[in-house]
Amino acid sequence: MGNSFGKNFRITTAGESHGAGITVIIDGCPPRMPLTVAEIQTELDRRRPGQSSISTPRKEADTVEILSGLTADGLTAGTPIAMLVRNTDQRSSAYDEMRERFRPSHADFTYQAKFGVRIAEGGGRASARETIARVAAGAVARKVLQLASGIDITAWVESVADIAMPAGDHAPTREQVEANEVRCPDAGAAARMIERIKAARAEGDSVGGVIKCRIRNVPAGLGEPVFDRLEADLAKAMLSLPATKGFEIGSGFAGTLLSGLAHNDAFENRDGRVRTTTNNSGGIQGGISNGEDIVFRVAFKPTATVMRAQRTVDAKGDPCELTGKGRHDPCVLPRAVPIVEAMAAIVLLDHRMRQSAQNETFDLGA
Amino acid sequence: MGNSFGKNFRITTAGESHGAGITVIIDGCPPRMPLTVAEIQTELDRRRPGQSSISTPRKEADTVEILSGLTADGLTAGTPIAMLVRNTDQRSSAYDEMRERFRPSHADFTYQAKFGVRIAEGGGRASARETIARVAAGAVARKVLQLASGIDITAWVESVADIAMPAGDHAPTREQVEANEVRCPDAGAAARMIERIKAARAEGDSVGGVIKCRIRNVPAGLGEPVFDRLEADLAKAMLSLPATKGFEIGSGFAGTLLSGLAHNDAFENRDGRVRTTTNNSGGIQGGISNGEDIVFRVAFKPTATVMRAQRTVDAKGDPCELTGKGRHDPCVLPRAVPIVEAMAAIVLLDHRMRQSAQNETFDLGA
Amino acid sequence: MGNSFGKNFRITTAGESHGAGITVIIDGCPPRMPLTVAEIQTELDRRRPGQSSISTPRKEADTVEILSGLTADGLTAGTPIAMLVRNTDQRSSAYDEMRERFRPSHADFTYQAKFGVRIAEGGGRASARETIARVAAGAVARKVLQLASGIDITAWVESVADIAMPAGDHAPTREQVEANEVRCPDAGAAARMIERIKAARAEGDSVGGVIKCRIRNVPAGLGEPVFDRLEADLAKAMLSLPATKGFEIGSGFAGTLLSGLAHNDAFENRDGRVRTTTNNSGGIQGGISNGEDIVFRVAFKPTATVMRAQRTVDAKGDPCELTGKGRHDPCVLPRAVPIVEAMAAIVLLDHRMRQSAQNETFDLGA
Amino acid sequence: MGNSFGKNFRITTAGESHGAGITVIIDGCPPRMPLTVAEIQTELDRRRPGQSSISTPRKEADTVEILSGLTADGLTAGTPIAMLVRNTDQRSSAYDEMRERFRPSHADFTYQAKFGVRIAEGGGRASARETIARVAAGAVARKVLQLASGIDITAWVESVADIAMPAGDHAPTREQVEANEVRCPDAGAAARMIERIKAARAEGDSVGGVIKCRIRNVPAGLGEPVFDRLEADLAKAMLSLPATKGFEIGSGFAGTLLSGLAHNDAFENRDGRVRTTTNNSGGIQGGISNGEDIVFRVAFKPTATVMRAQRTVDAKGDPCELTGKGRHDPCVLPRAVPIVEAMAAIVLLDHRMRQSAQNETFDLGA
Repeated sequence: MGNSFGKNFRITTAGESHGAGITVIIDGCPPRMPLTVAEIQTELDRRRPGQSSISTPRKEADTVEILSGLTADGLTAGTPIAMLVRNTDQRSSAYDEMRERFRPSHADFTYQAKFGVRIAEGGGRASARETIARVAAGAVARKVLQLASGIDITAWVESVADIAMPAGDHAPTREQVEANEVRCPDAGAAARMIERIKAARAEGDSVGGVIKCRIRNVPAGLGEPVFDRLEADLAKAMLSLPATKGFEIGSGFAGTLLSGLAHNDAFENRDGRVRTTTNNSGGIQGGISNGEDIVFRVAFKPTATVMRAQRTVDAKGDPCELTGKGRHDPCVLPRAVPIVEAMAAIVLLDHRMRQSAQNETFDLGA
Repeated sequence: MGNSFGKNFRITTAGESHGAGITVIIDGCPPRMPLTVAEIQTELDRRRPGQSSISTPRKEADTVEILSGLTADGLTAGTPIAMLVRNTDQRSSAYDEMRERFRPSHADFTYQAKFGVRIAEGGGRASARETIARVAAGAVARKVLQLASGIDITAWVESVADIAMPAGDHAPTREQVEANEVRCPDAGAAARMIERIKAARAEGDSVGGVIKCRIRNVPAGLGEPVFDRLEADLAKAMLSLPATKGFEIGSGFAGTLLSGLAHNDAFENRDGRVRTTTNNSGGIQGGISNGEDIVFRVAFKPTATVMRAQRTVDAKGDPCELTGKGRHDPCVLPRAVPIVEAMAAIVLLDHRMRQSAQNETFDLGA
Repeated sequence: MGNSFGKNFRITTAGESHGAGITVIIDGCPPRMPLTVAEIQTELDRRRPGQSSISTPRKEADTVEILSGLTADGLTAGTPIAMLVRNTDQRSSAYDEMRERFRPSHADFTYQAKFGVRIAEGGGRASARETIARVAAGAVARKVLQLASGIDITAWVESVADIAMPAGDHAPTREQVEANEVRCPDAGAAARMIERIKAARAEGDSVGGVIKCRIRNVPAGLGEPVFDRLEADLAKAMLSLPATKGFEIGSGFAGTLLSGLAHNDAFENRDGRVRTTTNNSGGIQGGISNGEDIVFRVAFKPTATVMRAQRTVDAKGDPCELTGKGRHDPCVLPRAVPIVEAMAAIVLLDHRMRQSAQNETFDLGA
Repeated sequence: MGNSFGKNFRITTAGESHGAGITVIIDGCPPRMPLTVAEIQTELDRRRPGQSSISTPRKEADTVEILSGLTADGLTAGTPIAMLVRNTDQRSSAYDEMRERFRPSHADFTYQAKFGVRIAEGGGRASARETIARVAAGAVARKVLQLASGIDITAWVESVADIAMPAGDHAPTREQVEANEVRCPDAGAAARMIERIKAARAEGDSVGGVIKCRIRNVPAGLGEPVFDRLEADLAKAMLSLPATKGFEIGSGFAGTLLSGLAHNDAFENRDGRVRTTTNNSGGIQGGISNGEDIVFRVAFKPTATVMRAQRTVDAKGDPCELTGKGRHDPCVLPRAVPIVEAMAAIVLLDHRMRQSAQNETFDLGA
């Protein structure tokens, strides 16, 4: 269970790092939109391994096939869009030892405890390859949002370990984010981050960091009382990503240090629209978007796979040691940027459609 | 939409601060459990206003009525448990001005933008009275968890504004938490927090803070790949609470500063069980509980209602001023403690039942 | 579980025949619609017992209270509408014997088998009083449909035991249906049905029959491929009603006797609209409404409670006899008419909102 | 929307008759069960075209590939099982005319009305090829049910047009059903049915009929009050199948002719178990299984595609004629038998798992 996400725009995913591949079915996609394989592939290429000097040297083409849901003219038909990315570069021998020994801070032990069995190769369903499905579906959601509403979603790496961008209310373009391989729009910080990641790799160690995301042109009114608040669904979306440890909307944990008077966002009339003078709310008030930019941050822990000996136990519970093998990112953040954007797009589109269902279907005349 | 939470143990809530009252229906409650009104009332009393010198002086009895779902012998029948808490102390005159002017950092503007209409009195559905339903349902979930599995959930106030408990891996009992009115188990910090809250009230201002929660005796195996990870559902549950701005599991944002080697939780065999030597994972790995304590933190912003003049706009979009009226908590955290626990209980019980459905129904012999 | 129905317009119900009462929460109701208690009460009065010479002499006022979801001006606020109908006329002594003995063709045995416990009085959750919640929610759905789309739903009693209306493609008005107490628009058949029902009662026996329903002014396009076909959701809605044994859409079982050429509904252009010359499809093709009237039939078994001795077993499994007591309808059909309409309204409105979410939110320009 | 079915055992399907193929994802499958491609293929072969003299001569291998969800040892892993059946024998030229003209009693018009666009080739998503996904998923559900609970599901053709099996409470084995190509266990009736189907084909016409299904060894207690009654979910499952027009449980429409005394199923103690002496209830009382065989019937209309000229309109709404082309079954029933069984298996397994979640997870000691 738990492999579907969304209510009206709903994705269901399947697939492990080993086996035939990763599948996603999108149910509820609006019809009549032109959609090409290339548009999906562009986003997948931002996520795939082997794209830069600081990511894993694994070469996986991650070529997507659209299995259904398009007309002969390449329009979305309103029927489910199934997509498949086949696995190719599988070296299960790299995982032999891991079959018998639980990797620390991985899901080996918990999957075994849950299911009584597990796909050990490559972490099985807990592999980050699972996020391919999210990115493919997110590419569709993103296009609908951009085309129809001009909603724009941009994420970037704000910090890697203790290397952070200068503080400030940044609003980079995607071009600025994509300008370097670490996907940090500040060139100086980016250079130091890259150095830091390479140093970690040289030591057989790994690093984590924080991704920030800004969503522009969001209409006021998206989000639902009371459980499906927009920030609640964003939090779930982000905490459902591998390696995430925290989520903040707007002022976040730092906001707990402010007084109410300092934290409140005063309303003003700017150019004929109700706007706030500050944005501690992060674009969401009472669970519903207020028309300001939505701004949130996500914490990613350091990669669990390290190339150094660690204490663990084997399948029988006996103590042993385990040294990481295989080809892994010493820092997941650069490749996580498109994944964060994809999940945000899916949440936003779903809520945009929910808003329509309840509040725009009828003109009840009052 | 959005007023239901959970999958197999599922709650649906309704009600505003004004109008007849707050209703909750629990669907899926396990049968054959003794349940009394008093058990629900105990938890509601921890949440209700007027219980201490630092909470709002509003006196609301918040008396719960169980409308259905119990046998004549007081056992849960397996059928839906509906509960109703009537509203009593309504002074809508206190809200007259607010009907015309959007309160900063409240949901007035966004509800109006979403629905084109709103219940202005007391914030309508965005009122914190809505959480009564969560606490009532959580009391039922908590009892099932305790009775059947010994799962224990304890939350407490870790910080108020810049006043924080001493750092450390605290594991207080409920008695220690309830020992003072701010619900911080460190007596010294508690005293300073109370002072800080009273100072904020004296200034017509407000403060926020952080609540920490620890869940003990969780069996390994709860949580689902990939979207319904246990921490994802906890994050959603917490970010669905009014005034929350952030969520951390285990090491959280601070964990981004550690290297992989330092962050990984080594496995060991302790007393015949697979355990971890540290708990940066916060009791969850790969989205699934590993048997260690689940530990998370939630950030609450300062109360939005302050008794000082603030800039805002009126319903026509014209600039104006607004000064908070009514009786409000200058700090929501002490009363939020039982709410955090309630939502955690609902998440845990739901996942316990899901685990049973898929993984314990059949012995398929492999 | 299983006490919610619908996706975007979603109802959740609770309550037994004994205990405090019947509760329903509507989530997702469109905002800005005037709604009064009287409008709900009108539909409840059509359902309540004691309304005619052929229904149970139980007198239950079934007075509804709207607990939440309305503005001070009586408009739907878009937040959940909770409604409560308290139980009043409870004579549990009438059920003493039934506590120990399983009533044939009731749910006593199966509830006990399922839950290991049961609310024996009045059948508990299996009581037809549960349908109060459906009628109350259906009254809201019906009003939205009528006000916004002119969709009109009319059901009537087509047959009672072997007494049937003359064959034909009937399309009675509600006034014609309400003209007599059996709710059959054919006066001659109605008279014979009433006689038949009274005869059954006189013998301590009971009768069943068929209700037919016609939905007018349905726009083409409602319904979803593939599992949520409109007729599939109608079938589920109807078979979820107590005492139902069958469902037919359009030509139904009789349609299996026709050849394809005879069964197919030819298209024609009538007054500038695409119409069908016949309506064997019952207004739905490929699971989606085609703009013709939706026509379906529902089979209701004879009331299970009869005032004659029947063989059964007691709680220990020992054979015994049981004679029905209490005050029961010898034929449920007249009172089931508004219930069928209510469930149809909920299905239609939900699908109308789903259609909006996916297919009307965006103009994607193709 | 609407392309998922089930709650704890949940399938999501995608795919059209043209395009790459048909995909299904099963979420929630119990782990640790051996599963082979051959077991899925066996059921698909019962459904595929070209298998007999009375089905379409289209030759489609319908070869299934399991994309994920199995361990290296061939056990279900508890993670989603994705399966793909590629389309092969596509002759879209056969559909050229149909692209411009709406086929009577097909979904061409309604899909166009709903989505504003459609995949015209082969009926797109409304093609019966969609049921491949159901059969593949049903094969998995069936195996779990059989292996773990001994639940056995057998459907057969009861009537074709006016040719019906002799009346009676039949309980054929699968071998008896599979003994002839029409899947009617009565050899005499089967021969006449085959003749009737061939005659229809010779005339360019088609026929419908009724499928009956019997489910044995169902434990008492499956099904939920009130909306997810077991018969309600079965009704939805069956009415979600292409070409279905009706559903009956137990006595069905004929039961409306009986009096209550005649219809009620008396309880008795048989071999130490509570049983009923008759089975008008069809194995379900109050929405919950009572341990007797579940027996239901499904009406299928005659195939809509006929090889004779019919009146219709074109995309502009202008009247025209259309003559069916392509290779179609003159009677869908023989191939629908495994589809009915598959959907029944999915419903039963889902409810078995739901029963476990709520009612078997905890021993609450009362």
